[in-house]
Amino acid sequence: MNDVIYETVVTTLSADGVPHVAPMGVRYQGEHVVLMPFKPSATHDNIVATGHAVLNLLTDTRVFAGCVTGRKLWPLVAAEKIEGRRLANALGHVELALAERRDDVQRPVLRMARVHEVAHGPFIGFNRAQAAVVEGAVLVSRLHLLAAEKIDAEMAYLQIAIDKTAGEGEREAWGWLREAVERHRAGEVR
Amino acid sequence: MNDVIYETVVTTLSADGVPHVAPMGVRYQGEHVVLMPFKPSATHDNIVATGHAVLNLLTDTRVFAGCVTGRKLWPLVAAEKIEGRRLANALGHVELALAERRDDVQRPVLRMARVHEVAHGPFIGFNRAQAAVVEGAVLVSRLHLLAAEKIDAEMAYLQIAIDKTAGEGEREAWGWLREAVERHRAGEVR
Repeated sequence: MNDVIYETVVTTLSADGVPHVAPMGVRYQGEHVVLMPFKPSATHDNIVATGHAVLNLLTDTRVFAGCVTGRKLWPLVAAEKIEGRRLANALGHVELALAERRDDVQRPVLRMARVHEVAHGPFIGFNRAQAAVVEGAVLVSRLHLLAAEKIDAEMAYLQIAIDKTAGEGEREAWGWLREAVERHRAGEVR
Repeated sequence: MNDVIYETVVTTLSADGVPHVAPMGVRYQGEHVVLMPFKPSATHDNIVATGHAVLNLLTDTRVFAGCVTGRKLWPLVAAEKIEGRRLANALGHVELALAERRDDVQRPVLRMARVHEVAHGPFIGFNRAQAAVVEGAVLVSRLHLLAAEKIDAEMAYLQIAIDKTAGEGEREAWGWLREAVERHRAGEVR
């Protein structure tokens, strides 16, 4: 399998129609999008129940930082060809249908076919602060596994790109991540 | 001025029609694209001479790593509405005309108006290895200013995302950056 991983946000609906928003690293394999949601997870259960998901391509890093710090409600818009929702702030989205499911105790492989693709806005360049927020979100999702020194060193390194190149959205997202590190440090439940 | 910086590649032509490709951090201000090329530089001289430039939006990090390691020839395609060239591998490009020039000894400010914009391909998600190559390219462009320990520590940190999420293009780009660090370490002229 091609191991190149792209950081995206997958939106799904439960069987009852409740939307769920989850950042996810995905792989592209031929015409398919390969998702490997953890089990148990709402994303996994929703795709198995409904057979559909929406892949959101976006550079608004608040969604990535927000979802790992408990902010899971983001503006959604109805999908066009499937029952589903896409993020309002996506630069583009792909509506997906479950094509093949290889079950696994922890990481089932869900191979998704592309039903419909829509572009909403242009990519306007790399932003180093956006990349720092994405790295920070990965770090925050693994706080319970990491030594305090490693967390401090990485946050200090990432802070440089935030200070130099961030916009308001990245500053807000970075603030949420810093708060999460502080809460973890203080021993509170995230 | 909005200080959010986006990493792009600017292509220009000399008065004689010789193309030049240069990675550049740009700012978006209202409808304008603000470039601050160093003086002296081919990008600065070309824009002043011709009044035009092309802003290339791309995620192929080989161009960023290549240009800072002496690889400046990239496949180009004619621009559509101005005399100019755009990168063949751009996800999108914007054809620009010089609207205002605030001269400066070292960093003149060139405010560029948008003449024409074209989308060529979709953004398919953040890739952590791409971000690592962009950071590595910044590092390599500043090797002469940095302590060996700092360079080693940052390259080791960035290597993690390369190992986990890179595709062939990012691996090739990363190899060029590592070679440049080794050549610098060995005391050769870059």
